[in-house]
Amino acid sequence: VARLLLIGAGLIGASFALAARRAGLFASIVAYDVDAAVADRALRVGAVDEIAPAIATATQTADAVLIAVPPSQIVPSVVAVVQARADRDAVLFDVGSVKAPVLSGLTAALGRLPARFVPCHPMAGAAVAGPEGADPALFEGRTVFLTPTSATDRAAIAQVGDYWSGCGARVRIVEAELHDRAVAATSHLPHLVAAAFAARFASDEGRALLDFAGPGFRDFTRIAGSDPALWRDILTANGDGVVAELDGLLRRLTALRDELASTAVAAELESTLREGRRARQAFSVGGGDEPGGRG
Amino acid sequence: VARLLLIGAGLIGASFALAARRAGLFASIVAYDVDAAVADRALRVGAVDEIAPAIATATQTADAVLIAVPPSQIVPSVVAVVQARADRDAVLFDVGSVKAPVLSGLTAALGRLPARFVPCHPMAGAAVAGPEGADPALFEGRTVFLTPTSATDRAAIAQVGDYWSGCGARVRIVEAELHDRAVAATSHLPHLVAAAFAARFASDEGRALLDFAGPGFRDFTRIAGSDPALWRDILTANGDGVVAELDGLLRRLTALRDELASTAVAAELESTLREGRRARQAFSVGGGDEPGGRG
Repeated sequence: VARLLLIGAGLIGASFALAARRAGLFASIVAYDVDAAVADRALRVGAVDEIAPAIATATQTADAVLIAVPPSQIVPSVVAVVQARADRDAVLFDVGSVKAPVLSGLTAALGRLPARFVPCHPMAGAAVAGPEGADPALFEGRTVFLTPTSATDRAAIAQVGDYWSGCGARVRIVEAELHDRAVAATSHLPHLVAAAFAARFASDEGRALLDFAGPGFRDFTRIAGSDPALWRDILTANGDGVVAELDGLLRRLTALRDELASTAVAAELESTLREGRRARQAFSVGGGDEPGGRG
Repeated sequence: VARLLLIGAGLIGASFALAARRAGLFASIVAYDVDAAVADRALRVGAVDEIAPAIATATQTADAVLIAVPPSQIVPSVVAVVQARADRDAVLFDVGSVKAPVLSGLTAALGRLPARFVPCHPMAGAAVAGPEGADPALFEGRTVFLTPTSATDRAAIAQVGDYWSGCGARVRIVEAELHDRAVAATSHLPHLVAAAFAARFASDEGRALLDFAGPGFRDFTRIAGSDPALWRDILTANGDGVVAELDGLLRRLTALRDELASTAVAAELESTLREGRRARQAFSVGGGDEPGGRG
């Protein structure tokens, strides 16, 4: 007779609710969203059973609380839950893309990390934001990173891991700092670069050039279509990691720029193209997609 | 009883041969490749009818000559054809990704532009290089840019345009300088950036981070899997245009870097993310694919 409280009924939260429902993980699911219309829509698409008017009351009867809100709202939401139910033992988990700032923010706000809060990051998303885009299969075959600390309750980690496995995901436990550095390199920097690249085509002069764009442009800029408010939040939260990776990229691009602007033999260019292809092929082995093309 | 001489029997040349054969554009197709094994393989996959041992002799009997070689080899190839058959009126066309340097290179080498040489750039490619990847449908629905000058013979332009239309492509005539600037922005810069980005993951330390890479990484780096030798050639040939676009991107990225490294409100970041999405959506309308995702 477990009961889930879902705080934040957008794409990720509503998808978890649908997947959990299909897997029979909870007897009932109640949703709270700061935007009442979003909670209503999650109810209408059948992701949740009822709507909670406030966190404080709903949390009293919940056995598990999923905090599926933008990065900047995670710490205040966890604090609100913890303060409303200091004596009960529900498990708490989130879905934020950046983990270390959540841990330090909670320690600063509460004086300690709540033992039964399990930090999570599911590597999943979809083109349509909001509960309308919710998909019970969103986490199937995808990795969910858990970044507990030594203060995190072992039973809570196992419980939350079982939730994600029940949704079809692969669970991996890593340190929060390693996680944040890794996603800065593999996910956050590409989002920043794709946006900065695509922004050049927002002017009338730039838009005229889109007639010359092909499939290479399409794939390279796909992530520039992501939600700007969410990504401002993510990039700001992981600012140090993103800046460190960006500095490396700026160094490599500047060296290539100077070589292209000179009459030098394109040695740096050729070795970068070869290294880039080698790394891409190493990824493809795991990723199972086809590389290359002239675009 | 038209006869096509194909110089360069790789992916693009062999695909044109297959498409032309299917459309019945030529009575026979003969191939020359500086690498005899490549010409052999084009013969084996059924793209061509015979192999020419040398350009000079094969060009005497050809009504059309397609020069499908890497950018740095286009001018020498056209010069070889023109010098071997000064008095005959075959049409010549190429498939290089950069056009203005071909025009200036030919003018420098021959003292004039050959009137029946029609510069072309088909916006098509595939993951598998060489004649094995050849596909008669490669140009269907794709744009082929023609960049003739005032010195180019009108009948030759019409003839070559008909060839590409026969292969299912849309033909667009543009100025070479505009073409080169536009593809520097939409195609060549993304290839350079994707390679420089992916090269960071070629080390052992970098490769370990690929466990954290998802679909956003996959799409952003797809073009980093392209042929390094071909792309060194393309990027070097269009060096000025690529450097101009790269300078703009470096400026935008440096401004974002400084904002992320400071405690400033992320105003530049948010407006870049919004502009990037707006431009991406403008492209999507034409491109017909789905944007976004959290990746």
